[in-house]
Amino acid sequence: MTDSTRRPGFSRRDLLAGLGAAAAGTIAAGAGALPAASVSSWDMSTDVLVAGSGAAGASAAIEARRAGAEVLVIESLPRFGGSSAMSAGVVYAGGGTALQRALGVEDSVEDMFRFISGAGGAHPPLDKIRLYCEQSSAHFDWLVEQGVPYAPQLAGAMTVPMAGESLYFSGCELAWPARELARPAPRGHVPVAAGMTGGRVLMEALLARVKALGATLQADVAGQRLVVAGDGRVLGMEVTVAGERRTIRARRGIVLASGGFIHNREMVRKYAPELYDCAVPWGNVGDQGMGINMGIAVGAAALRMHQGFAIVPMYPPESVLSGIVVNAVGQRFVAEDTYYGVLGDAIAYHQQGRAWLVTDQRSKPPALQDNFVQVAQGNTIGDLADQLGFPKGALQETVAYYNRHALNGEDPLFRKRPGLLRPVQGPPYRAWDLSVKNSFVPAHTFGGLQTGLDGEVINSFGEVIPGLYAAGRNSAGLPGAPYIASGLSVGDATFFGRRAGLAAAGPQAGKKAAAGGRAL
Amino acid sequence: MTDSTRRPGFSRRDLLAGLGAAAAGTIAAGAGALPAASVSSWDMSTDVLVAGSGAAGASAAIEARRAGAEVLVIESLPRFGGSSAMSAGVVYAGGGTALQRALGVEDSVEDMFRFISGAGGAHPPLDKIRLYCEQSSAHFDWLVEQGVPYAPQLAGAMTVPMAGESLYFSGCELAWPARELARPAPRGHVPVAAGMTGGRVLMEALLARVKALGATLQADVAGQRLVVAGDGRVLGMEVTVAGERRTIRARRGIVLASGGFIHNREMVRKYAPELYDCAVPWGNVGDQGMGINMGIAVGAAALRMHQGFAIVPMYPPESVLSGIVVNAVGQRFVAEDTYYGVLGDAIAYHQQGRAWLVTDQRSKPPALQDNFVQVAQGNTIGDLADQLGFPKGALQETVAYYNRHALNGEDPLFRKRPGLLRPVQGPPYRAWDLSVKNSFVPAHTFGGLQTGLDGEVINSFGEVIPGLYAAGRNSAGLPGAPYIASGLSVGDATFFGRRAGLAAAGPQAGKKAAAGGRAL
Repeated sequence: MTDSTRRPGFSRRDLLAGLGAAAAGTIAAGAGALPAASVSSWDMSTDVLVAGSGAAGASAAIEARRAGAEVLVIESLPRFGGSSAMSAGVVYAGGGTALQRALGVEDSVEDMFRFISGAGGAHPPLDKIRLYCEQSSAHFDWLVEQGVPYAPQLAGAMTVPMAGESLYFSGCELAWPARELARPAPRGHVPVAAGMTGGRVLMEALLARVKALGATLQADVAGQRLVVAGDGRVLGMEVTVAGERRTIRARRGIVLASGGFIHNREMVRKYAPELYDCAVPWGNVGDQGMGINMGIAVGAAALRMHQGFAIVPMYPPESVLSGIVVNAVGQRFVAEDTYYGVLGDAIAYHQQGRAWLVTDQRSKPPALQDNFVQVAQGNTIGDLADQLGFPKGALQETVAYYNRHALNGEDPLFRKRPGLLRPVQGPPYRAWDLSVKNSFVPAHTFGGLQTGLDGEVINSFGEVIPGLYAAGRNSAGLPGAPYIASGLSVGDATFFGRRAGLAAAGPQAGKKAAAGGRAL
Repeated sequence: MTDSTRRPGFSRRDLLAGLGAAAAGTIAAGAGALPAASVSSWDMSTDVLVAGSGAAGASAAIEARRAGAEVLVIESLPRFGGSSAMSAGVVYAGGGTALQRALGVEDSVEDMFRFISGAGGAHPPLDKIRLYCEQSSAHFDWLVEQGVPYAPQLAGAMTVPMAGESLYFSGCELAWPARELARPAPRGHVPVAAGMTGGRVLMEALLARVKALGATLQADVAGQRLVVAGDGRVLGMEVTVAGERRTIRARRGIVLASGGFIHNREMVRKYAPELYDCAVPWGNVGDQGMGINMGIAVGAAALRMHQGFAIVPMYPPESVLSGIVVNAVGQRFVAEDTYYGVLGDAIAYHQQGRAWLVTDQRSKPPALQDNFVQVAQGNTIGDLADQLGFPKGALQETVAYYNRHALNGEDPLFRKRPGLLRPVQGPPYRAWDLSVKNSFVPAHTFGGLQTGLDGEVINSFGEVIPGLYAAGRNSAGLPGAPYIASGLSVGDATFFGRRAGLAAAGPQAGKKAAAGGRAL
């Protein structure tokens, strides 16, 4: 770690000094933000304060520091990296990235845009998607420049890259109806890593870069409230350090990048009830929604707070995709060969959290047994249906219709890919519980503060809140419900995190750095 | 209209006086609220300011005035009554109301609670539902006391009260699965009115009461920003009057009751994309979300912003319910005999806005022809399916399965009531477009500010924002998605509007009124 001589770290003196007025008890209950007038002196100061050390925070810190700003990154937990470090580290990138080109993969900005804007929910944020796609190839180059390692190896379709591959189909590009929207291309860019630990590799590289650039990282410092001037400008943040309250002045800006709120159960119940029942709240325990709540408290609008991912990791092995997924009345409702996130969304949001996978003797269930519970087994589909309490004859009808067309290599309802199509035929038939409550269904929140293209936080009147930026899952960005591809969340976090950091550093920051001649 | 001698109305002098500092341009962009320091003098003042003159605002004004507070009700439009006056005026009430008892209808608080809490979406606000059900009978008495007229006549099931009936099944109580959750009872209480104009009758009574009690009503006054003290207390509101900005001091409290945001298209697109595409934004043009936005700007949390109703008014006539409703792959997905709001929710939120009603020669389509477009007609179900471009054989399978069981009086999938069950059989077969974009599908928003049981507005940290209350569709209340019964929205608005008005008047208000001996 390269320390900056201007490092604004917490000294023992800071910790022992008398508390600022922030803790003096003069603030009324209900004052979600601290008025600047109540802060008689700041305990410390920096140019740019970044709350959160995941992909968004690290990317913001890198760009703010490169622009010459003094940068302090605070992290509420003892370790850096956030939920990004726990993720697979996938960045959804395309339009002809260096890695795609090296592997002979054809892609275009327009195909990528059509996929992201068209395959997900209604009325997505087109301006963000457009910018993200246009600059995706350059953004991938930036990741490489930061030292994130990628290998020119392509993983097969319907697999996850467990053998060091760095490019794969991380979404539902090949599934119907997405494949008719845009020419499919593998766009999941994964750092070289053992198993699915790409997130750790990604964050090690980004955090090393943050340190090398001379930003300060402080663990165990938790944001509590923003400090706001009478004119609405955000001046700083009240934090807790070892249980004590301190105030940090951010002269140029604050970037909220402290993750979603999946581990704040009360918030999930209120805002995203469909995710509340998912068995596995996914992500870092620091995902308590504090950044979002601090932003809301100063008047920020929060968007898509009900959305998130519910992941039903049904494959590999690919063979299970020859089974069928049915709802509580025995109907199919989704292309089984779609991405986990689309399947999980269909179950969590549209089937009241319940679904079953039906397999036959040819399905190989090892992965299933890890994640899902077999709840019925029988010699006929009727046996299975009876055990599951399905409506009379319904599953039998579904299977008969499916089989009749599968024999011809057709799936009229959901157009499963021909290679995966065959009749569900031959005992033992098994039913696996895919219900979000009972199975391994990770959930994560996507709702966050409304931001502009530079991460500037927007209030309910559509105005910028001066001095405040947000990125990653503190903002409402590209990922929505359904979650159509792995890598959209970390991709959004890194891409818009960079922009937020640069904007927070301010247009004067670059000039100052150049004039000062500091080696960045 | 009975004018109060203490009426705080706008005089010509007020209008011509110099502007307060609010308009002096000292406020930074992004200050979603006005700091009190920027308001050098108030243009007028009152004890309780109510923004909005619909059911919530009128109910709040009545209770605040009865508690002795000086009350000013402002309305952004030239006419009073809000969306409530445009509605059917249904109040969902039960547990044995005077009207239910007079008609020999058996009901209990517990059945009503089980229905409201169990038949809708996941994790509803149980505390509000509980209180609402427990006090529902008393609340109905209050409505009668205010002069709202009801007649002891019960309408038949699957009808709407067009002939002066005041009690009917206004929700999905009789449909599956709701009927298994709780003993069904008619709970839609409708003012005596011609056709479905009960809302006008309701609002005429409530507004007459507001005036009789001596509250002041001012039309054409639009709330713009709240004025907030440094300690977070809401002190007043900046409004516009004939294009000029004015400030109103609310000494005791402000009740935001200015409706939802269905007519603010940008808000709908951002917050409730599923409702954006519904053909008929329903409600008063004043539903611009200003109350919600003013609340968010001072740090209020907003809940369930994506939710609302999408109403698909398929019946009467009851005969159409013997047809079947199918999705884009020809499957049934809902009990056809459920409430409009449940059907509309299933289509708008869970079928990407698309569905079709299939009828046969015995279905009488007059009402359908008013609201929906016939998009196919054929001599066989296959003809119909081909014209609609349905997947090969899918609709035929659906109809065959349905008919086979309907012959036995059974609907294994969705348990349509036996009286409505018969095979879909006999040309001409017709398909009616129930898609939210193409048909008469009214939509309205339900998201709003987080409030406690007394309408107190809650910030993102779960703290009360002092001086601020919200009710009706400015708050997140009982109505959610799916909307399980007509009357939950106006019911919630009147019930919690009353509580908000009383709380805003403050505990001292009643004493003062008593001491002053004013005849209320």
